[in-house]
Amino acid sequence: MEPVNIGLLGLGTVGGGTVTVLTRNAAEIARRAGRDIRIAHAAARAYDQERISGIEAIGRITDDAFAVVDDPKVDIVIELIGGYSPARELVLRAIDNGKHVVTANKALIALHGNEIFAAAQEKGVTVAFEAAVAGGIPIIKALREGLAANHIEWIAGIINGTGNYILTEMRDKGRDFGDVLAEAQALGYAEADPTFDVEGIDAAHKLTILGSLAFGIPLQFDKTFTEGISRIEPQDVAFAAELGYRIKHLGITRRTDAGIEMRVHPTLIPHRRLIANVDGVMNAVLVKGDAVGPTLYYGAGAGALPTASAVVADVVDVARALTTDPTNRVPHLAFQPDEITDTPVLPIDEVETAYYLRLTALDRPGVMAGIAGILGEEGISIEAIKQKEPAPGETHVPLIMLSHRVKEARMNRALARIEALEAVSGEIVRIRMEGLDG
Amino acid sequence: MEPVNIGLLGLGTVGGGTVTVLTRNAAEIARRAGRDIRIAHAAARAYDQERISGIEAIGRITDDAFAVVDDPKVDIVIELIGGYSPARELVLRAIDNGKHVVTANKALIALHGNEIFAAAQEKGVTVAFEAAVAGGIPIIKALREGLAANHIEWIAGIINGTGNYILTEMRDKGRDFGDVLAEAQALGYAEADPTFDVEGIDAAHKLTILGSLAFGIPLQFDKTFTEGISRIEPQDVAFAAELGYRIKHLGITRRTDAGIEMRVHPTLIPHRRLIANVDGVMNAVLVKGDAVGPTLYYGAGAGALPTASAVVADVVDVARALTTDPTNRVPHLAFQPDEITDTPVLPIDEVETAYYLRLTALDRPGVMAGIAGILGEEGISIEAIKQKEPAPGETHVPLIMLSHRVKEARMNRALARIEALEAVSGEIVRIRMEGLDG
Repeated sequence: MEPVNIGLLGLGTVGGGTVTVLTRNAAEIARRAGRDIRIAHAAARAYDQERISGIEAIGRITDDAFAVVDDPKVDIVIELIGGYSPARELVLRAIDNGKHVVTANKALIALHGNEIFAAAQEKGVTVAFEAAVAGGIPIIKALREGLAANHIEWIAGIINGTGNYILTEMRDKGRDFGDVLAEAQALGYAEADPTFDVEGIDAAHKLTILGSLAFGIPLQFDKTFTEGISRIEPQDVAFAAELGYRIKHLGITRRTDAGIEMRVHPTLIPHRRLIANVDGVMNAVLVKGDAVGPTLYYGAGAGALPTASAVVADVVDVARALTTDPTNRVPHLAFQPDEITDTPVLPIDEVETAYYLRLTALDRPGVMAGIAGILGEEGISIEAIKQKEPAPGETHVPLIMLSHRVKEARMNRALARIEALEAVSGEIVRIRMEGLDG
Repeated sequence: MEPVNIGLLGLGTVGGGTVTVLTRNAAEIARRAGRDIRIAHAAARAYDQERISGIEAIGRITDDAFAVVDDPKVDIVIELIGGYSPARELVLRAIDNGKHVVTANKALIALHGNEIFAAAQEKGVTVAFEAAVAGGIPIIKALREGLAANHIEWIAGIINGTGNYILTEMRDKGRDFGDVLAEAQALGYAEADPTFDVEGIDAAHKLTILGSLAFGIPLQFDKTFTEGISRIEPQDVAFAAELGYRIKHLGITRRTDAGIEMRVHPTLIPHRRLIANVDGVMNAVLVKGDAVGPTLYYGAGAGALPTASAVVADVVDVARALTTDPTNRVPHLAFQPDEITDTPVLPIDEVETAYYLRLTALDRPGVMAGIAGILGEEGISIEAIKQKEPAPGETHVPLIMLSHRVKEARMNRALARIEALEAVSGEIVRIRMEGLDG
């Protein structure tokens, strides 16, 4: 069979990894795909052109990315430049030229996926993006194909390795957030500007994609609620552990009667859940389907070779589909384009979860009764209370409460009233909880 | 698009689950697949015909399975009868009639898959078998497609739920094997004849399939080494825990320079590994690829609806491929048929693992030196030794040793010599160990 000709945009970390995988495993990949895959044309900055190994496997190299997407010899364009522009323009031009596209660009898909998929649909080409979510874990394939028989109920994922590394270090060593982050930056695990990772924006990009795939809704990044981990304190990690929980930064999407939840935030989960034991930079996605029950997918969520693993798997998939009738291909968002529905995404106020609450309250009779009274009036029931001993000379004590499930708006009202109590000092720490059991 | 017509063979547990999933999720599945899937013709025993719910969704029902595979209206035959015969004859006749086949029959694929795939290849049809390994977990899709870029190094899986349930109960509650098995049988988790599950035959069927998919070798069930869990004692579970290990019944296949290992046996694994925390009836498969690193796939390995989830996903896949050029489809065993190689499967004597050893030895000076001397002569190094206190009035003590990696044949020689020592009483308990870390 004819070889497949790749046009590769970007020879940075993932681009370099892709060259490595395509060259090192060329024979084995061809044994599977039934044809050779060769990089016919690549575009890279001069800096990357000099440092890339395996460059001799690349047919032609340029610094003009548009020359690659316009090259008539190229069958499949791999976009590994990242960011919105010129990635968006390049991908749209490749589509317009009738080429299939493989991308690892989560931000691009989360924000411009609807436009890109519509263009691809019209041209009868495929845009594959396995590498955009959870790196090497084939979670998009699992959702779109492996679980195609299921009514998906919810997904909860650890989909940012940097955040999970920080939380794991905080738990294992009792360290604080800023300390671990500084070290992670020094070691190169975290970016110089860590906002995307620790504030949950990167996870929200990925969750936006997962939610669309699970529920057949358009990509709506702007409706995904995002809360980071930068305010998690070592004492909350420790109190959670005492109560049998771990704190993970989860992306959660759930179908409810009222609409679809899309939210990224720190979450207490029971320590016996498998996903609670996913540590360090590893990612995992837990999917609950009505037929299959819970399934979990675990692996490296980033890195040159793991991400390249997903990129190249997409290339093999797309190569196989080159002769397929486009209407029989797996749809971009798992559901046929005319079957995407506008089920509303719930604002966070309408989302129902349980809560871990930590108050600092005066250690004096009657205080607890006042707090309990407000919670009762707001219809919030408490599952557990833990009062710590006051430190010597301290008049205030930490008070930990675990609530049953309640709407966020109602909890906000109750917390505002409790914070207004004279006996309660400072802001109440509030971390959402999920049982992840059904 | 035209609906897809299914011929369904068997309306027992999984057949009933398949009818449930196809009817309950019909709309959602059609939104994904772009066409309706309907059960045009089903064959079942009279007993099953009476108890099945959703039977009104089935076009025509018969007790003659051959009538279904000969029905010209049927596009895809789903074989859920189980066993070797007449399943094999039915599948081959369906293929001969030019129909695609979906099966959950692990025994059939492990023993007759080579013949079946060759026939399918010749006829240009697909035989899909996702449900044959690890129930609802889309592990076959992950191996064949999601990890297609990787040189697979090894796979280790908990692929029998009954065995994992028994080992979990033994660990959590200190119970003994026979006791838990009897309860599992009473609860319906274990078969009246538990041999297939507890002696590892069922797991070996599944491992045979995983090994072929990972390494591109023919299915060779007869070369898969199998050791069950019926001889695991509560004290070994407890000693393993003290040393930081859990005992799991694993199917392991690994590529080495000398050949491919294929083995099912109880295995000590470090308790911090994610797969060590897969408990109860759940399954998990850990796959190590050279690019992606370790990835793990977790979920229900059996049961009506989880298995049906995999069956129906295969139906959607096959339906999508109906118009594909057969040479572009995903090959049955992951590698193109002419790329299947005859890499030898290693006999267990040639397999290298670490070992947990439990001896019962006279509590007397010099005994340990004698044992250590034999191990040293055989070139076996010991990583840890733990000697227990003798029970009051006992002259013998349990002696636990963890060895470094060594070939099985060499360990067998050493153990035979140690068992012959006068100071050592009875048989030495030997459980293989794996780090599963690289």
